[in-house]
Amino acid sequence: MKPLEWNWYIEYTSAHHGYLYAIKKTLFSDETPFQRVDIVDTFTYGRLLVLDGKTQSAEFDEHIYHEALVHPAAMLHNGPKEVMIMGGGEGAVLRELCRYPQLEQIVMVDIDSKVVQMCREHLPEWHQGAFEDSRVELLHQDARAYLEGTNRKFDIIYSDLTEPAEEGPSKLLFTKEFYKMVKTKLNPGGILAVQAGGFSLDYLTIHAAIRNTMELAFDSVRSYHTFIPSFDCSWGYIIAGVKPDQLAVGRAEIDRRLGAIAGQLKFYDGETHEGMFCLPKDVRRALQEDQTIIEDDKPVDF
Amino acid sequence: MKPLEWNWYIEYTSAHHGYLYAIKKTLFSDETPFQRVDIVDTFTYGRLLVLDGKTQSAEFDEHIYHEALVHPAAMLHNGPKEVMIMGGGEGAVLRELCRYPQLEQIVMVDIDSKVVQMCREHLPEWHQGAFEDSRVELLHQDARAYLEGTNRKFDIIYSDLTEPAEEGPSKLLFTKEFYKMVKTKLNPGGILAVQAGGFSLDYLTIHAAIRNTMELAFDSVRSYHTFIPSFDCSWGYIIAGVKPDQLAVGRAEIDRRLGAIAGQLKFYDGETHEGMFCLPKDVRRALQEDQTIIEDDKPVDF
Amino acid sequence: MKPLEWNWYIEYTSAHHGYLYAIKKTLFSDETPFQRVDIVDTFTYGRLLVLDGKTQSAEFDEHIYHEALVHPAAMLHNGPKEVMIMGGGEGAVLRELCRYPQLEQIVMVDIDSKVVQMCREHLPEWHQGAFEDSRVELLHQDARAYLEGTNRKFDIIYSDLTEPAEEGPSKLLFTKEFYKMVKTKLNPGGILAVQAGGFSLDYLTIHAAIRNTMELAFDSVRSYHTFIPSFDCSWGYIIAGVKPDQLAVGRAEIDRRLGAIAGQLKFYDGETHEGMFCLPKDVRRALQEDQTIIEDDKPVDF
Amino acid sequence: MKPLEWNWYIEYTSAHHGYLYAIKKTLFSDETPFQRVDIVDTFTYGRLLVLDGKTQSAEFDEHIYHEALVHPAAMLHNGPKEVMIMGGGEGAVLRELCRYPQLEQIVMVDIDSKVVQMCREHLPEWHQGAFEDSRVELLHQDARAYLEGTNRKFDIIYSDLTEPAEEGPSKLLFTKEFYKMVKTKLNPGGILAVQAGGFSLDYLTIHAAIRNTMELAFDSVRSYHTFIPSFDCSWGYIIAGVKPDQLAVGRAEIDRRLGAIAGQLKFYDGETHEGMFCLPKDVRRALQEDQTIIEDDKPVDF
Repeated sequence: MKPLEWNWYIEYTSAHHGYLYAIKKTLFSDETPFQRVDIVDTFTYGRLLVLDGKTQSAEFDEHIYHEALVHPAAMLHNGPKEVMIMGGGEGAVLRELCRYPQLEQIVMVDIDSKVVQMCREHLPEWHQGAFEDSRVELLHQDARAYLEGTNRKFDIIYSDLTEPAEEGPSKLLFTKEFYKMVKTKLNPGGILAVQAGGFSLDYLTIHAAIRNTMELAFDSVRSYHTFIPSFDCSWGYIIAGVKPDQLAVGRAEIDRRLGAIAGQLKFYDGETHEGMFCLPKDVRRALQEDQTIIEDDKPVDF
Repeated sequence: MKPLEWNWYIEYTSAHHGYLYAIKKTLFSDETPFQRVDIVDTFTYGRLLVLDGKTQSAEFDEHIYHEALVHPAAMLHNGPKEVMIMGGGEGAVLRELCRYPQLEQIVMVDIDSKVVQMCREHLPEWHQGAFEDSRVELLHQDARAYLEGTNRKFDIIYSDLTEPAEEGPSKLLFTKEFYKMVKTKLNPGGILAVQAGGFSLDYLTIHAAIRNTMELAFDSVRSYHTFIPSFDCSWGYIIAGVKPDQLAVGRAEIDRRLGAIAGQLKFYDGETHEGMFCLPKDVRRALQEDQTIIEDDKPVDF
Repeated sequence: MKPLEWNWYIEYTSAHHGYLYAIKKTLFSDETPFQRVDIVDTFTYGRLLVLDGKTQSAEFDEHIYHEALVHPAAMLHNGPKEVMIMGGGEGAVLRELCRYPQLEQIVMVDIDSKVVQMCREHLPEWHQGAFEDSRVELLHQDARAYLEGTNRKFDIIYSDLTEPAEEGPSKLLFTKEFYKMVKTKLNPGGILAVQAGGFSLDYLTIHAAIRNTMELAFDSVRSYHTFIPSFDCSWGYIIAGVKPDQLAVGRAEIDRRLGAIAGQLKFYDGETHEGMFCLPKDVRRALQEDQTIIEDDKPVDF
Repeated sequence: MKPLEWNWYIEYTSAHHGYLYAIKKTLFSDETPFQRVDIVDTFTYGRLLVLDGKTQSAEFDEHIYHEALVHPAAMLHNGPKEVMIMGGGEGAVLRELCRYPQLEQIVMVDIDSKVVQMCREHLPEWHQGAFEDSRVELLHQDARAYLEGTNRKFDIIYSDLTEPAEEGPSKLLFTKEFYKMVKTKLNPGGILAVQAGGFSLDYLTIHAAIRNTMELAFDSVRSYHTFIPSFDCSWGYIIAGVKPDQLAVGRAEIDRRLGAIAGQLKFYDGETHEGMFCLPKDVRRALQEDQTIIEDDKPVDF
C-alpha cells in the first residue's frame, strides 16, 4: 500500500482532544534559552512556527491571525504615530504595520533573538522584508523590563505573545500589575491590542482570564474573534482603551478609513470587522460568568 | 504511569489532517441498510452521533449547530405555518421548530428509521420529546422520492442531511435537478435552509459547490456561518428564497421578532445573527472563484 | 478521498510510545464492578478483549498466547490430574486444557462473571464450548480468597490474570505473600505457570518483578517467551516448580509427549518449546540486574 | 495540564495498524537523490534513522539488529577473509565485522553517500569509528552494478538494504536474477546473509517472498529471527549457502567459536543463536504456504 505519512504534529488541547497535522519536513528544531523552537512544513497548512509545542502561525492563514490583530486597533485609533509590539517574532505584525505611511516609529521587543533569526531565514512570506523598514527598531529583551525602564509612550501597543504557561517566557506579561504599568505607557487615546487565546465555548479559560485582568486596568475592554483554520479553532483578541462610541463604527466607515491599504489586505475589511465584533450569545454568557484574574503572585496555570 | 485513554475517534478531514477525540464509551455501533451508525460518549464533547465516520452533532454544542440551522429562516420568513425537514435524525431540528406556536405542521422525512430510533433512545437531550408533538409527521423514506410524489407545499424546507458522499444516502439530495424540484414544493415566499458543510478557507469545496448549485434554482442565495467547537471548524449554512431587502434586518429587529422564544435559546439572538451573516473577505473571494456544480449525472466526489 | 478509518484503539505503553489499531466495530463496552470491559473488532487482528484499556487476547493470535501458557507446564509435569486456573475469562486456557484426557478436574476462578459471560457470547472461537466440559468447575470469586479458603491441592496452577495495576482486581495476586500461599496449594511435583508481562528489553519491569517475587517462594523459577503479533511485543511467561533436570528435555521428547494432541495445536511443538526457553543475552543480563520485589504492603506501580 | 508531546513518528504497517513514537528532536530531515532521510531523537528508543518513513535502526537496540545480522554467518563460515556489505549506511555492520581480526578486506557498497555522511555525523554510537578501519573500502554506487562489474569474490556477502518498495533504491536487489548473480560472486563455502523483513504471523509476506526467491539460487536457505523492541515486531533474517550439517551446531560450540569476541557483544551468544534458529510451528507452516517469487520484471509491491 501507499504508506500514510509518518511524521505528525499532534497539538493536544487537553488529554482528551487534539489536532493532527502531517509534517512534510522539519526545517528547524532546537532549544533556545527561552523555549523549544520548531519550524515544520506541513501538507495542509504549509510552514508552521511552533513554540513549546504550540502553533504560533501558519503559512496558509497567518494573514488572518495577523490582520485581525493589527488593523482593528489601527482603524479605531485617531491617528497613531508611534507603536510598539511585544513579541511578534515572525515579523508579520511588523509587515502589517509597515503598510501605514503615517506611522513614524515601530518598536518591536521580542526576548528571543534566535526565534527572530530563524523566522527571518525560514519564513520570508511572513515578514516580507519588514525588518528592513527604517521606522523599525528591533530589541531583544523582556518586554516588561523594557517598558518599565523606558520614558517612551506609544499610541498603540500590540501584545503578540505566547500563552502565559507556567514555564514560558510570557508568564508575567498577562498580569494585573503588568497591564496597569502598560497603561501608563500609552499616550492619551492610546490602545492596547492583545492576541488573547482560544475563543471557543470549550476553550475560553485563557481568554476570559486575560479579559478580566485587563478590565482591572482599563475602562473599556472589548473582545473580538475570528476562526483560524490552522488553529482548528475560533481565536480571540482583546482591545482596550477604545471608547464605546468609537466602536460604533459601521462597515462602510471602516472601508473608507482603510483607503488605499484595502487592496493589500486579504482578510480584513469593513464586513470582516463587523463580524469579528459580534459575539455569540453563549460565549457572551460564558465570559460573564468567568471571574479568573491573573496576578504576578498568582499566575494562572491553564 | 496513569494510562492515556485508549479509545479514540480520529476524524480525518484529509490524509494529512484530522481531529482526535478520546472516547469514554461506545453506546451503539452498527450498520443500517443505509450507513454505519455509531453513538459514542467522548470526554470533551459528551455524546456524539457519528454517521459513516463523520460527526453529525455533539451533546456539548448541538445547540449551536441546530439553532443556527433553524432560526434564521424562521426569523426571515413572513409567517411560516407548514415546514418540512429532510434528514434531521437526532430530532433537534424538530425540537427547535416546536418552540414556534404558529407552526401548524412539521413533516420530517429521514430515510433511516434505525438512526432515528437510536437517537430517541440514546440522545434524549437532543429531541427533548419533540417527536411526541402532535404537529409532527415522521416518515422514513427517501426525501427526494417523498417530495417528488407529494402535492404538498411548504413555507420552509430544512435540509439537515449528511454530506453528499459517493456511497452515502444523501448523494442525490444536493444536485441541480433536486434543488429545481424542491423550489416547486415551496409556497410563495418560501425558504430553503441547508446545512452546507465546512466554512473554512481550507475546506470550502463542499460549501461552494452546494451554493453554486442552489444558485441555478433560486434567485437569492446567501451563505452564513458559525464556529462549532466539536467540529473544530467554522460551519456553513445556506438560505435561499430570501430577498436582499428582507435580509437587511438589524439585530434589534431580530430580537423583537424572537420575542418569548429568546429565553429558550442558548446561541441565537440578534447579535449572533448579525455576526453569522458577515463573511470574511478571503472566504468571499474564494467562494466567488469556485465554479463547481453538482448534477445528478455528475455528483461531486469530495 | 477515501476516508481513513475513524475509530482507533491506541494502546500506550508509556506517554511516549504506543500501538494503533483501527476498530471496525465495538461489540461490547461497559464497566463491571471490577473493571472496564470492551470487546472490539479490529481490521488487523479481528476481535480483541480489552480490560481497563489493555489487550488481553486477539482472535488472530490468541492461540499463541494460550498455547504458550498452557502446554509447557503440562508437558513438564509428571502426569497432572487436577489443575486450577486463576482468571482466564476468555475460556481459552480451558479449551487448551480440555485437550488432555488424563485431566480429571479443572477449577477456574475468575472474579468477574460479566467478563466471562461476554466472552462466552462474543468470543466463541476462544472457548469453543470448553465451559460445557464436565470436568470444569467455574467459580466467580477472588482467586486469592478461594485458595486461602480451600483444602484442595492442585498439580498445576495457571495464573492468567490482568497486570497488577494499582486499581485493578489482580493487585494482590502477584505478591510475595500470595506466591508463598500458592505453593502450599500444590501437590508434590506441582507447577505454577504464570503469564508474566512484556518480555522486551524496554519493557521488562513487570516480568522481572514477578520473577524476583516468585523466586522468594519457589526454588526453581524459569522465564520463557514468544512474540505475539497483536501485542506488538515479545511476551513473557514464568514457570515455577520444575527442577532443572526436568527442563533439559529436547524437542523430540516434547513432540513424543504431545502425541495425539500435536495435531490440534497451531503454535506449540518441540521446536517452538525449545525456542521459547532460549533467552537473549541482553535480556538475561537485564533480568539479573533487576531487584524489584512485590509485597502485599508494597505493590509495585508500573 | 502538562502537555503531551506534540511531535510523533507514526510507522504505519498498514492502513489499519501502526506504531507511535514521540519525537524529542529532529536532527536531520532532507531528500537525497535516492530517498527521504530523517534522523530523529525519540524519547523511548533514542535516535532513529528513518528512510522513506521506515525505521532502519534505533540507538536503543541497533545492537540486536546488527549483531543478529552479522554473527551467525561469521560463526557458521569456515574462516572468512573477504566480506562485502550491500547497504549498511549506519556503519554498524562494519563495526561488528571489524571485531574479527581474521578479516582482511571489508567492502561496503551503499548507493547513498548523503545517508552515510549523516550517519557518520549524527550516529557515532553506531559506527564507533569503524569507517576508519584500514580494511574497509567504502563505495557509493548501486550494489548490483558493482557486483556485476567486479571480478572479486567474497566469503560472506551481507545484504543490509531497505525494503524492496516500488520506488526505493533497493527494488532490484531482491530478485531471482540478482540472487543468481550474487551466488557467482561467492567463494566456495561462501554465505549470503540477508536482513529479510518482518517475521510476524501477520507480516510475513516480504520475508516469505525473499526466502522463496533465494531458494531459486541457493540449495540451502534458512530463516532465523529475533524480536526487536523499536520495530515492535519480530524480525527475520535469511542465511544461504550453509549446509544443514554445518547448522547443527550447539550453543556451547558457538560460545567456543566466539572466543574473545564474546565479551564485546551485548545480544549474541550461543543461547541466543539457538533461540533464533527455532521457528514457531505456525510461522513454519505459513512460510511453506507462501509461493511468491520476486523477479526483475515482476517486483512485488508489498
